[in-house]
Formats: sequence, C-alpha cells, structure tokens
Amino acid sequence: MINYPNSKKAFKRQKKNHSNRGMNFERIINESNDYYTSNDVAVIHKKPIPIQVVKVDYPNRANAVIKEAYYKIPSTTDYNGVYYNHYIDFEAKVTNNKTSFPLSNIHAHQVKHLERCANHGGICFLLIFFKKHDEIYLLESKFVTQYYKRAKKGRKSITYKEIKRHGFLITEGYAPRLDYLKIVKQIIDKKNQ
Amino acid sequence: MINYPNSKKAFKRQKKNHSNRGMNFERIINESNDYYTSNDVAVIHKKPIPIQVVKVDYPNRANAVIKEAYYKIPSTTDYNGVYYNHYIDFEAKVTNNKTSFPLSNIHAHQVKHLERCANHGGICFLLIFFKKHDEIYLLESKFVTQYYKRAKKGRKSITYKEIKRHGFLITEGYAPRLDYLKIVKQIIDKKNQ
Repeated sequence: MINYPNSKKAFKRQKKNHSNRGMNFERIINESNDYYTSNDVAVIHKKPIPIQVVKVDYPNRANAVIKEAYYKIPSTTDYNGVYYNHYIDFEAKVTNNKTSFPLSNIHAHQVKHLERCANHGGICFLLIFFKKHDEIYLLESKFVTQYYKRAKKGRKSITYKEIKRHGFLITEGYAPRLDYLKIVKQIIDKKNQ
Repeated sequence: MINYPNSKKAFKRQKKNHSNRGMNFERIINESNDYYTSNDVAVIHKKPIPIQVVKVDYPNRANAVIKEAYYKIPSTTDYNGVYYNHYIDFEAKVTNNKTSFPLSNIHAHQVKHLERCANHGGICFLLIFFKKHDEIYLLESKFVTQYYKRAKKGRKSITYKEIKRHGFLITEGYAPRLDYLKIVKQIIDKKNQ
C-alpha cells in the first residue's frame, strides 16, 4: 500500500501549473491506477523497484533492517495488470527532448519483453510524456519494436512526428487524471473486430 | 535478469532427493517460468520484493548504495504475466502442515487482489506445496475466496481434503520441472467452451 500524502495538494497545484508535471508523471499514473482499482475498472500496479539485498540486520523477527543493498536493472517493465479480459503491460517514460524520443531511454530487454507479451495477446505500449509539449502519448509496442530495429542501422530515436502519427494523445481528465485505458479500450475493440 | 548459478546442480540433486524441495519451491517456479519465456510459451515473472528505501549513498552516479531500507508488505501477489491471451496471477505458498493449509499464510488484501483480477478475466490461483505429502496443488482463487469467507466464521484453514477435491495436483516433469501452465490451459479451455 503506497501513500500519497500530498496528492490532493499536488493535484490542485498542477491544475494551475503544469511545469512540474514531469516529476509527478509516475504519481499521476499511480493515482489513475488507484482510481481504476477502486472503481473496479481494472487492476494495474507498478512493480516494486528491484533491489539486491546484501546485508540485513535482524534485531528481532519483525524488524529486519536492510543495511546494504543495490539497485538492479529491471528485467521487465514498470506496470502490468488486467483490464477487460486482457493482459496489460507498459513502461512510462519522460523526455525533455522536443523533437524526438531517444531510444536510449528504454532497455533492449524491455523492448523484447513488450514484444513477447504482445505475441501472447497482451496489450503492450509505452506512455511517453513530452515535457516541452506538455503532451502524453500512448505508443503501441509494435511501433517501439519497429523503431528499435531501425535504430540498429540508423537514427537512435523515434521522432515526435512519428509518435504523433502512430501514437494516441491522452487528454487530461479529472478522475482518473490520466485515462489511458480509454485508449486501451479502443485498441482492444479494434483487435476483437 | 536473475542468475541461478547452481540451478543445474540443484536440479540433479533434487531429482534424487526431494527432502529439500521446500526451500527451492520458489526456484523451481522461477526456472519453469524461465523455460516458458525461452520457449515462447508464456511470459510470467516474479515481482521484485517491495522495499522502502530510507537512506542511499551516492559516491558517484552509477554506484548508489542503499544504506537503510525496510521490507514492506506486498500489496499484490508474487507472480503475474500473460499466457494464451490471458492474464495470469498467482501466489506460491509452502506449508509444513499435513492436514490443512492455514489461511494465515496469505494476506487478506492478496485474496482480494486475486478476486479482483479474476473478476476482470484473469486466471488466478494459489500454488500450494504440501511438504509432508511432497505434493503441489493449484487452487483457483474462487475457492480461496470462498474458504477465506468461511474463516471469518469458522475454521481458519483449507483442509488438505478440500484442496485435493477442488485443486489440481501438479505432477513433476523434466522441462519445465513444474508445468503448472498445463493445468492453466485446461482452465482456460473450460472457460472458453
């Protein structure tokens, strides 16, 4: 259970000024996911950050204190869950770049993971927040895979134009703030046609 | 990417002697999941253990050392992923008890999580390893929910007999060692009939 002590305040502040939204991109997604769970729309969670624990002190059974640990490279993506009978899997990324999304932002094995999940019937994508444009796009993993392949020979990014063409702009709402599942529903409906 | 340096040795040792299988239940599941991923059968991962980081030393950008952190209670289950167009979600538990599976082994919010995911179309279950019987059962979450409700009024466990009746015994194989998805496939086929 994650607490967001200042979420309401942060929400109001952000309604007035979007400039610090980048820092709170993760929070906005988490809040939207909380909304989805409470309103029985979907169950989507952020995975814990993988940490390699090296040394733990056990003063007593209930109070283990980790004294030495290291961040590990995530082997999958940040978010997954279930919506409308479908497996959902995505990674959220922020970029300060105005004209493109640099592919150095995402690990090769994460692209592979999204591709694998999509092959088994999952709805897989990136949520990309262009800070300079104050826009959030949902880009399906098939395009990510495609541009990742191109990067081996040529440009190491997906242009803003390409994302505008293939992605879906997610408009902001009130509850949930970031209703990305509205887009996911369209993708599911198209898939099931 | 998790390394299992001694997995092959451990595997051979266990083929001869099952007595230490309890300790390795998680490893057996992880190895089976690795097999499923490599053979393009499914994508199922164990989630990282949730840890609350309090203090981090940054000698330089690449080498953050966590100096103080605490284990958090998981808000969901240990494993999830995608198989055959379906969302998969489960928790793995070991018990030394011979006649029943004590429900104190599982958190109330985990039962709720499994129930929620099942309501959205996920295939949700427990994998229960009865050490004394050297048997592993898959028990669908609908039964877990049912017995969890009973526990509020009466017995705080699911009897071994009940698990034998409603669950599926998972027989051991070679590759993957624990082919629990064979059972999941039967559940999916029945659901789609």
